[in-house]
Amino acid sequence: MALYLTEGEISQLLTMDETLAILDEMFQARARGEIVNKPRVRVAYPGGNYNLMPAGWTTHGIVGHKTYTVTPKGASFQIVLYGTDGSGLLAVMGGGRISGLRTGAATGYAAKLLAGAASGGPVAVIGAGFQATMQVNGVVAATGATDVRIWSRTQEKREAFATRMAESTGVGVRAAASAEEALDGAAVIVTITASADPVLMADQVKPGQTVIAAGINSWWKGEIDPALYEKADLVVVDDIDNAKVEAGEIMRAGELGRISWDRVVAIHDISGGLRAGRTRADQIIVCNLQGIGIEDVAVAEVVYRKAKERGIGLELPA
Amino acid sequence: MALYLTEGEISQLLTMDETLAILDEMFQARARGEIVNKPRVRVAYPGGNYNLMPAGWTTHGIVGHKTYTVTPKGASFQIVLYGTDGSGLLAVMGGGRISGLRTGAATGYAAKLLAGAASGGPVAVIGAGFQATMQVNGVVAATGATDVRIWSRTQEKREAFATRMAESTGVGVRAAASAEEALDGAAVIVTITASADPVLMADQVKPGQTVIAAGINSWWKGEIDPALYEKADLVVVDDIDNAKVEAGEIMRAGELGRISWDRVVAIHDISGGLRAGRTRADQIIVCNLQGIGIEDVAVAEVVYRKAKERGIGLELPA
Repeated sequence: MALYLTEGEISQLLTMDETLAILDEMFQARARGEIVNKPRVRVAYPGGNYNLMPAGWTTHGIVGHKTYTVTPKGASFQIVLYGTDGSGLLAVMGGGRISGLRTGAATGYAAKLLAGAASGGPVAVIGAGFQATMQVNGVVAATGATDVRIWSRTQEKREAFATRMAESTGVGVRAAASAEEALDGAAVIVTITASADPVLMADQVKPGQTVIAAGINSWWKGEIDPALYEKADLVVVDDIDNAKVEAGEIMRAGELGRISWDRVVAIHDISGGLRAGRTRADQIIVCNLQGIGIEDVAVAEVVYRKAKERGIGLELPA
Repeated sequence: MALYLTEGEISQLLTMDETLAILDEMFQARARGEIVNKPRVRVAYPGGNYNLMPAGWTTHGIVGHKTYTVTPKGASFQIVLYGTDGSGLLAVMGGGRISGLRTGAATGYAAKLLAGAASGGPVAVIGAGFQATMQVNGVVAATGATDVRIWSRTQEKREAFATRMAESTGVGVRAAASAEEALDGAAVIVTITASADPVLMADQVKPGQTVIAAGINSWWKGEIDPALYEKADLVVVDDIDNAKVEAGEIMRAGELGRISWDRVVAIHDISGGLRAGRTRADQIIVCNLQGIGIEDVAVAEVVYRKAKERGIGLELPA
């Protein structure tokens, strides 16, 4: 019998630390070829779009997908899991909480993986919206950073956000007076905006810094200056196939002749030791995370198993 | 609040006649550009596969998908519907009953559309498995045929199937003694097998006959002799993009140089009068139906609306 889980139930079943551990294991498994992940399918309609992200972890016997609709009135996320052993439908669950956590965790994971010895150093976060909460949580949990600087256009918003995050994380989160102040000496720079215009220019990034761009995923996205991809010593993405159709910044950098796709490395190849990550302290590394379906499916699998163990959720009639 | 519907509830809410009416309306709407349909996404895993079929009817404000897993132990089908107006998740329902009915209805619809004045004449059905039941129901309901001949390899199976279908439909359904006997004078030939080897050769099809091939969808499918696509005066499919990656028979006929894709017509273009269907009584027409997501989504929308009206189904907690 399949299980139905609400967002509220999922919140009780999943922490950022667990999400980080799941992604760590998943990226290793992907390097071993145990993961199937399909590029996002988008269906556009007037005023919004509908998205499907299919994936599977074959050695776990799990396939599934996240789907969501986005409109000006809000978004609705669901994750569906199937067993590959003939068990069929296993679970239908809300996908909002999992999306937020895994996006923050992926940023934290990438920051730790790519910052090298500087991991744990100061973090600059550009953006102060809902998802920025998860980005701060993810990067603090993954790297142990204690100095987080927030920059966003509106002073009131960034200050309120920093105060809230300092309280909830218990580490030093403060609003910066300028982008420059936020970025100065940062080991990791996280961008998390919905901006179509660059919020981070190439000349603002100094040797040794690791940039994780995880803002809105769409070909029109442009929170990073295309020139930064040319300046970077290493460009990392969460999925090459997906990035080629969705990572607008890299697509534009490619069209401008500033970068060649053969220089772009998939994060799991670094996780698994198949490709080099950071090899020198002074390298500039830019990591563009679009979000991939296997992140949702892998996390949802753990949520499902925990819910079954604890007797949480609604058993759906067959 | 979203609605969950079981296969049993859906069976009470949907008839073949209604399914035919929905597909008729949908194909007309597709000719007017109101439909979005994405090619099936397949995720293969050891022993089976996982499939996603996204689609939307924008003027109805509905998007959704069917997903299913197939393994030797059986298949599990689900359909999920979303509102495009910001309402988000509308329904999660079993997709088995709807898949069966819409596949039969699509065959019936195509038979009526393409057989012209001969529609209602004798029907030969090759195959006597589960889905053949729905094909007989669909073609009888759509065309009013009263003479249905069943051919399959195993005498006992085809005779039991014919007896059962004669009882349930109330029209003349009989097992043929040979494929030739089944095909002789048939206006419509329906193939519904999982065969990778042709069960219908080009020289078995005579002028004026309409062939509807709706057996297992996969690039390795081959229930129709590739030469029949060359012999045909008109080749029709339910979706050109999908057929190019899934209709193994036409793909092989194309590779053998027997057919060019620009000769292949989408059924909705005939429904909407944009392309010619049958123009002469002696034409051979071959229609290859892979099944498309919008068939599932359009039928599920009506099931959902009827269930809401009648208070059927389980309201899922948010």
